[in-house]
Amino acid sequence: MDVQQIAEQVHQKTQVETTVRDVEKVMSGLARTSHFWEIVCASQKPFNVVAEIVEAMRSRGLVNIGEQGDIILTPEGEKFLSDNRIFAKKDYTCPTCEGRGIWREALSELAQKFDEVTVDRPEAILDYDQGYVTTRTVVSRIALIAERGDLEGKKLLVLGDDDLLSIAAGLSGLPEEVVVLEIDDRLVEYINKKARELGLPVKAEKYDFRDKLPEQYVGRFDTFNTDPPETLEALDVCMTRGLTGLRGEGCAGYFGLTRTESSLKKWNLFQQMLVNKFNVAITDIIHEFNHYVNWDYLLGSIRDDYAFVQVKPRLNWYRSSMYRIEVLSGFEKRENKPMPCELYIDEEALIYKPDNK
Amino acid sequence: MDVQQIAEQVHQKTQVETTVRDVEKVMSGLARTSHFWEIVCASQKPFNVVAEIVEAMRSRGLVNIGEQGDIILTPEGEKFLSDNRIFAKKDYTCPTCEGRGIWREALSELAQKFDEVTVDRPEAILDYDQGYVTTRTVVSRIALIAERGDLEGKKLLVLGDDDLLSIAAGLSGLPEEVVVLEIDDRLVEYINKKARELGLPVKAEKYDFRDKLPEQYVGRFDTFNTDPPETLEALDVCMTRGLTGLRGEGCAGYFGLTRTESSLKKWNLFQQMLVNKFNVAITDIIHEFNHYVNWDYLLGSIRDDYAFVQVKPRLNWYRSSMYRIEVLSGFEKRENKPMPCELYIDEEALIYKPDNK
Repeated sequence: MDVQQIAEQVHQKTQVETTVRDVEKVMSGLARTSHFWEIVCASQKPFNVVAEIVEAMRSRGLVNIGEQGDIILTPEGEKFLSDNRIFAKKDYTCPTCEGRGIWREALSELAQKFDEVTVDRPEAILDYDQGYVTTRTVVSRIALIAERGDLEGKKLLVLGDDDLLSIAAGLSGLPEEVVVLEIDDRLVEYINKKARELGLPVKAEKYDFRDKLPEQYVGRFDTFNTDPPETLEALDVCMTRGLTGLRGEGCAGYFGLTRTESSLKKWNLFQQMLVNKFNVAITDIIHEFNHYVNWDYLLGSIRDDYAFVQVKPRLNWYRSSMYRIEVLSGFEKRENKPMPCELYIDEEALIYKPDNK
Repeated sequence: MDVQQIAEQVHQKTQVETTVRDVEKVMSGLARTSHFWEIVCASQKPFNVVAEIVEAMRSRGLVNIGEQGDIILTPEGEKFLSDNRIFAKKDYTCPTCEGRGIWREALSELAQKFDEVTVDRPEAILDYDQGYVTTRTVVSRIALIAERGDLEGKKLLVLGDDDLLSIAAGLSGLPEEVVVLEIDDRLVEYINKKARELGLPVKAEKYDFRDKLPEQYVGRFDTFNTDPPETLEALDVCMTRGLTGLRGEGCAGYFGLTRTESSLKKWNLFQQMLVNKFNVAITDIIHEFNHYVNWDYLLGSIRDDYAFVQVKPRLNWYRSSMYRIEVLSGFEKRENKPMPCELYIDEEALIYKPDNK
């Protein structure tokens, strides 16, 4: 029995490419913590891959599952790690900025205001694969966009906004205009109501991003922000909509991409799409910039065949890397047309039960 | 006269694509500071582009050049910025980690040790386009590589090491083996001497990366680190050497790329090379991770036709983004053969005098 065997078995079971180093990283996370969601977070591997690796270790007697679903290395497990020179994951994340590289104490004021204003925000629902980021994240994102020169005096397009980034942007006083296109009526209404009450230059409209971008928004914006569902098809559609909304060269797009729902193979394919087809440059990929607040529907929506998975998360484990892309000169608009696509389901996605397939 | 005109004029003069937004970003930097090197740093544009934009503004009466080479907005300049809605650059860089996202107080010890050990390091020389990073940078880089699981118990290949990363890696006690391949005899000797004195698992050999990788190093390493010269040819050669040294899938490469010597057009072409030809995923691009200590030969090596350029830098202005790439499964080794190439000179590179061309 070796690491290579486990990698192959997990690859077969999940249909997600799984390397020896992937298995090592999950084990390295497991050497650091016994909590499933923290291992997912530490190893940055697709959810099902982590689950199957833990199960493979359990079935080989390398870990035991405690009563609370804790995953505990057995003496055999400890020996296995030591024999394979696998060490506990190190953590050097900056405590001030939570690893984002962006933070100033002055931003606390905006954070507090945002919390006060959005205290009655709509809860995340499964229908649209929702889940929103922490206040710290949303304010850091505003600061990032501002620092890169993409916010002050600019027009911002927000494609999907359960994060309420538009409200944070409005409260910052920096952008000239913010337009939110959002499928969820509750959010459209909520954002418009807040914008009205607070006199923010923000408006929201109902929009399904499989439809073409409303003509009045084509080529109007300096910056777009979105958090695409992570199938390649959905990424394609999201980038097409965002880029169609931009004025042209020098404009920028911001979005998150996870390692939890997307393997690096998918990252590579997506990056090919960005640099070849869309002809943009990727200027930033900031690891774990976006931290999501745990959402209520998680445990009901995922597999229930492994006890160690069905435990309540003890941390904001779901995170994504922040991408910034910039449009180059010679940018050609893509055709603005409806694009039907599967948004949420592929082998690597989180929302996965065997009967979903 | 408008921003568009300036962009076109600068494009023509430098042969580097220059967009309206590029000009805006330089002006935005200039609204924040009067020091040329700080404007280069804030605007993250190729050196010559910044110089020509400032000159274009000077010739239009938008800035005056002070006696110390300071660049000062005239009342006309102030009005021009305000009319064009160009605002002073914002800075939200985290003060604890200097924007890297990586830092723990415990690393100070390694930093101090590194400083003590390398107090007699060789100075940077022009022959090999040298320039080394700050101690804070080198220690943060070690922490980053360790955090991503690419250092502890691993074999590290360092291609070119005027930064003395190998010594910092050795001092950390984490890697199993560090091999440095370096063209500068002074550094080869220095690193080997220190490694011997301190008992570090580090060795250095003389190597010109236009030669093929020594056979004993093909497929040997888990991780490579390099700081390529920034012509596309040199990037190609550097990545080929680094990847040829790696064992395979899941292994990682780390390197810096500037915005000062490379336009985003070049970034895009380089990214195409990475994701298409080399079939890796880019997992991180960390803005201004690497800060370089100012080197003695700077002012003697660059253009002397503009007074505002020939001023001594007041900050560590030369910075680069940190890339991490990861090898995917199905990785195919490239042929290991000599690759002659132009290393240092292109339109965007810093080392540029008209008579160099």
